[in-house]
Amino acid sequence: MILELLSNPPVWRARLVAICAIAVAMTFALPMNSTRAASVSVSNFKLENGMEVVVIPDHRAPVVTHMVWYRVGAADEQRGVSGIAHFLEHLMFKGTKKIAPGEFSKIIARNGGQDNAFTGQDATAYFQRVAKDRLALVMEMEADRMVNLRLRDKDVVTERKVILEERRSRVENDPANILGEQMTAALYQSHPYGTPILGWEHEIRKLDAKAATDFYKRYYAPNNAILVVAGDVTVDEVKKLARATYGKLKPQMERVRSARPKEPPHRVPIRLNLDDPRAGRATVQRYYLAPSYTSAEPGEAEALDLMMKVVTSGTTSRLYKRLVVEQKIAASAGGWFSGSGLDSGRIGVYAVASDGVAIADVEKALDAVLAEFIENGATQKELDRARYSYIASHVYGGDSQVSLARRYGWALVNGRTIADVEAWPERLEKVSVEDLQRVAKKYFDMAQSVTGVLRPTEKKNAGTKEAGDEGGKS
Amino acid sequence: MILELLSNPPVWRARLVAICAIAVAMTFALPMNSTRAASVSVSNFKLENGMEVVVIPDHRAPVVTHMVWYRVGAADEQRGVSGIAHFLEHLMFKGTKKIAPGEFSKIIARNGGQDNAFTGQDATAYFQRVAKDRLALVMEMEADRMVNLRLRDKDVVTERKVILEERRSRVENDPANILGEQMTAALYQSHPYGTPILGWEHEIRKLDAKAATDFYKRYYAPNNAILVVAGDVTVDEVKKLARATYGKLKPQMERVRSARPKEPPHRVPIRLNLDDPRAGRATVQRYYLAPSYTSAEPGEAEALDLMMKVVTSGTTSRLYKRLVVEQKIAASAGGWFSGSGLDSGRIGVYAVASDGVAIADVEKALDAVLAEFIENGATQKELDRARYSYIASHVYGGDSQVSLARRYGWALVNGRTIADVEAWPERLEKVSVEDLQRVAKKYFDMAQSVTGVLRPTEKKNAGTKEAGDEGGKS
Repeated sequence: MILELLSNPPVWRARLVAICAIAVAMTFALPMNSTRAASVSVSNFKLENGMEVVVIPDHRAPVVTHMVWYRVGAADEQRGVSGIAHFLEHLMFKGTKKIAPGEFSKIIARNGGQDNAFTGQDATAYFQRVAKDRLALVMEMEADRMVNLRLRDKDVVTERKVILEERRSRVENDPANILGEQMTAALYQSHPYGTPILGWEHEIRKLDAKAATDFYKRYYAPNNAILVVAGDVTVDEVKKLARATYGKLKPQMERVRSARPKEPPHRVPIRLNLDDPRAGRATVQRYYLAPSYTSAEPGEAEALDLMMKVVTSGTTSRLYKRLVVEQKIAASAGGWFSGSGLDSGRIGVYAVASDGVAIADVEKALDAVLAEFIENGATQKELDRARYSYIASHVYGGDSQVSLARRYGWALVNGRTIADVEAWPERLEKVSVEDLQRVAKKYFDMAQSVTGVLRPTEKKNAGTKEAGDEGGKS
Repeated sequence: MILELLSNPPVWRARLVAICAIAVAMTFALPMNSTRAASVSVSNFKLENGMEVVVIPDHRAPVVTHMVWYRVGAADEQRGVSGIAHFLEHLMFKGTKKIAPGEFSKIIARNGGQDNAFTGQDATAYFQRVAKDRLALVMEMEADRMVNLRLRDKDVVTERKVILEERRSRVENDPANILGEQMTAALYQSHPYGTPILGWEHEIRKLDAKAATDFYKRYYAPNNAILVVAGDVTVDEVKKLARATYGKLKPQMERVRSARPKEPPHRVPIRLNLDDPRAGRATVQRYYLAPSYTSAEPGEAEALDLMMKVVTSGTTSRLYKRLVVEQKIAASAGGWFSGSGLDSGRIGVYAVASDGVAIADVEKALDAVLAEFIENGATQKELDRARYSYIASHVYGGDSQVSLARRYGWALVNGRTIADVEAWPERLEKVSVEDLQRVAKKYFDMAQSVTGVLRPTEKKNAGTKEAGDEGGKS
């Protein structure tokens, strides 16, 4: 739950949320990169209509993972229609001239496959995992709904209720997510990353077929999409199938998303305190603005990944060892670097108080760990271990067809290249202990931060609105 | 300075800022309403091209105040081009086919008049005060620049520098204004009122002639403007002159501004702490979201005005008496209701610590005053005194031609009517002590608030970026 809250993952379709939440959080806490077995040779080409295609051969089993990524996400929404990217993603499962409403996933399932979709701030993706001999079917169906979606008012009304319920269960019922949403809104004064992917409730209520159709017509087209096929296929097979399906679609003009406003410089630390009777243990979290792999100076994102690994990630991290193991004032502690954004990234740290420990003391201890690292930096051994850990987990990730497909899809949809992805291990090798200290000093900057404190309250106090009843304030 | 910071007044042209700042802040802390002498008879009519005209006869001296209000302000800017409304307001003083660049104000001055302009979140206005026999000249010039503005790249570049300097001197050099800007940004998660009227610096740097021209062509037209003439004129005289000048301009299609996104509900109190070596005494301020005269339930805005008067405004207010006079822990304390916004308003409170008093103690005392008021409300005597005070200051305001013209301009540009303005004293009479208590309970809601603490620091600590160096936090 903490991970899901902190890493602001893309919004997956509701039915698979429970399964995917942790996996997603972990995946996006890691950089979207590759250290594949040498045997895998990724290639790409373009269809005449502008659609990019990436092929990742994997002949261990006769299955394929098929993904279509659109260069559009929640951050491309117009002001006032938040949630439309995610709403449309749901509506994509309704129907076309050929597919009856609600049949898409059933057809995939009847053919022994699984399908899903998700919406992020920068991308929207649809994917299926099927037996190799069903790839043609899947490509035909996905190409069909890329341009032939039919939206009946009835379906739109029903799906809007589903999404409002999704929002209620995920955000409204969980004070940690309420606080996370408000912290994110406070972290971005101008950039649309501050708006929740699910949308603000009052704006979701107004979403209709017209808004969805406008968004669909503007952004869904072959020249705004990337096809990733991983599995038991050859490049030639994919090329032939892609031409016969996606290749028949006409490109559309104006598929380029508008530039988002750049975030103005922040000058003042921000704090949010939420006391809620539904909260579990008292928790402190902090977000800091940081660059992403796309926006960072060369080497900085890699250094941020490694620095956060050393300082905050896992039970061997500085933070965990100090607060949980040695001082025993926290029940849990950690952090992450979210570096996959198109325009910027962020880093986050958190700690959960042990019983009877004041959250202010936990926060002081957390700050002391960060301050000590800024002062003294990492040892070479810590750096090497973090580097090894990333490389290892990416090699394991390379064993998973879905992980690999997602890694390349994420990179390409944000304007990076296959070469970028493949050079990542080399870039990691170049990072020094000085680099870690430098990015820690630069980005653990309170003026760029939002701190959230969540504390449980007695039920009798819930809902009062007395002035001064601000909970965590001193 | 505090007043200017807290009330977020419109941005006046730089050269008159020093003179106008306090007056503006005070004016906008008061409701934009009327309690005029019975002898003044305000009337209005429309030109055929859709331009509204308001005439406020005032025959005490042979002078007139001429104002043109456009239904557009900073909150109508597209994301990413913040500052363009204000930039265009500056550029309106450049030139047309008839007026050489920079000559507009000089011509007014040579004719014995004064002119100025300002940009707000919801409106942009231009005005002149001249001898009665110069009214025709002024109307001709103002009508001319409504549609014939000429922008030379040279002028645009120069003016951009002027505005960047304006921003530097007003915001960057003043930690109170830096904090105020960041607090305002934090107060609005979605609504554009969170963006400074001056614009974010990095966006001002990109403003050019094209952006200004686009904005001008979209919003500057007779059917998006309101003319207010107050002074030694008759309705017939104004009608004749208006027809001969503004009346000759063609209406333009699409002069209606887009609806702004509605602010999502806030759930968590927000705090910002700024320690700055340039700060004077430690200060605590708080903004709360509240409705405006346009957006409030009937009677609520009037009750907010009166409640804030009783609790926070002036040396006889609860807040001042308790903190400054009795407890002597604050050097100053006050508050305001800003109710003139098109979409919403806000209330604000502040206190400045006395020497040697911790700002946290001052904040606690401030909170205690608010909590006590929520608990027990006002006395009838307090309410009556506040009401009398407003009515009195509005009667005095009615003596000022400029105040009167501004009062009607503000109301009409935000969709209110002359009748609304004139019924204000009656509506004030209906407010009860229970209403005051009710709005205090409803709107002194920490979940809807942003609190800012500004403290002076020793120079040696300035600019450090150590984690945990958050100043005011416990």
